[in-house]
Amino acid sequence: MKEKLTIIKVGGKVVEDDTSLQLLLSDFAAIKGKKILVHGGGRSATKLAAMLGVENKMVGGRRITDESMLRIVTMVYGGLVNKNVVAKLQAMDINALGLTGADMNVICSVIRPIKDVDYGFVGDVKKVDAAILSDLISKGIVPVMAPLTHDGEGHLLNTNADTIAGETAKALAPYFAVTLIYCFEKSGVLRDENDDNSIIPSISYQEFQSLITEKVIQGGMIPKLENAFAAINAGVEEVLITSASAINAIGGTHIKK
Amino acid sequence: MKEKLTIIKVGGKVVEDDTSLQLLLSDFAAIKGKKILVHGGGRSATKLAAMLGVENKMVGGRRITDESMLRIVTMVYGGLVNKNVVAKLQAMDINALGLTGADMNVICSVIRPIKDVDYGFVGDVKKVDAAILSDLISKGIVPVMAPLTHDGEGHLLNTNADTIAGETAKALAPYFAVTLIYCFEKSGVLRDENDDNSIIPSISYQEFQSLITEKVIQGGMIPKLENAFAAINAGVEEVLITSASAINAIGGTHIKK
Repeated sequence: MKEKLTIIKVGGKVVEDDTSLQLLLSDFAAIKGKKILVHGGGRSATKLAAMLGVENKMVGGRRITDESMLRIVTMVYGGLVNKNVVAKLQAMDINALGLTGADMNVICSVIRPIKDVDYGFVGDVKKVDAAILSDLISKGIVPVMAPLTHDGEGHLLNTNADTIAGETAKALAPYFAVTLIYCFEKSGVLRDENDDNSIIPSISYQEFQSLITEKVIQGGMIPKLENAFAAINAGVEEVLITSASAINAIGGTHIKK
Repeated sequence: MKEKLTIIKVGGKVVEDDTSLQLLLSDFAAIKGKKILVHGGGRSATKLAAMLGVENKMVGGRRITDESMLRIVTMVYGGLVNKNVVAKLQAMDINALGLTGADMNVICSVIRPIKDVDYGFVGDVKKVDAAILSDLISKGIVPVMAPLTHDGEGHLLNTNADTIAGETAKALAPYFAVTLIYCFEKSGVLRDENDDNSIIPSISYQEFQSLITEKVIQGGMIPKLENAFAAINAGVEEVLITSASAINAIGGTHIKK
């Protein structure tokens, strides 16, 4: 039987506030067994960009990453957020290792091809080196992954953290019984976004499609769920969407195969 | 016989200019066998601090690191400089892994005690985990070390890159035949700082002391050489001070046991 591995993805909002970060890391430290943390950091990047007078351009919720913005996300995701999380986990006796995709060539991407929009230095994941990650994890090391990859030609690439979590989960599925948990602000996928008690406890791909038609699911939730379904259909054992404060609780929305 | 390991320490000036960085990395990639790169980044940190309106306080060439400055060096050293070096080395088929001392608890420090000066979040190295570094290196991984460590209690600490290189060399001396190369702007220790041909080819501790008295060696060169002598006297095979453009050349100043 494969050993259990839990992959937690948390967004910027949670990791950028000291109190919520501390709570999250305590919950994360309490997860038994092997684990990986994938983090965002968008809000801090936006804030630093404003302080440095770098224009923040977003198209459909995705950041246009020109050279100046790449420097900013490299500093914020790879440095500020990642290294602080690592130091705080070490203080909780979790042997964390901060990684971008460039480190040990863990995740190689291709620059997103220009169609309607030129996203700049944005990467679409090509390959996750599951063997090297599996080797680290087996030694008790806990990877902390920043939303940055590289193209193998010397360029770092800004890469969606949900995608990194999903692709890493898929790549590690042959090695571990992977549980992938996407954390966000709500307690799960809600039938009524204003009612936190309207959680949809489980959802199939067909139901997901209907809920898009009904406009119950919209915006950034759509690609998040697309990633979730891709993961569950590629051998990931369990995929869950829940709030960051409930990673050790029963609840949230389970993705059905 | 122990396998050879080369540890190169380069300062901010070299890694912060695209042309000199590219040259350095090509030279570094050409070094045969196991290797480690330790980098600075002070000039970029100073520049970013100025852009963000954070006051840059130096005492005796050492940076006072308050909370705002710690955020800046974490972004610049751990993010911008480190991850760009890693991505560029990967493009040269060097399997680089960027590390701060917090990652895998590789280097634990103590906050520098307050005597005459409160340096703030500045670390004095307490312990380098040579076993984990040696394991990585033996697998063909090339550590790229940023001048940041941690205190094991959740704080990152700004830490002198020369010290990191020296302490790492000393810790790895039981595992490898270590050559430690300190790169700086000049071709070695010069008898006349205005004459690049006045390199002192080798220097003993006694000669070093005399040269301090004669004021031939002064300023930041003194702690650099102190680190160099400490390393050679703690089992490091060879310690060399040379220019960043000459790491594969014969020359520079050799430190005598």
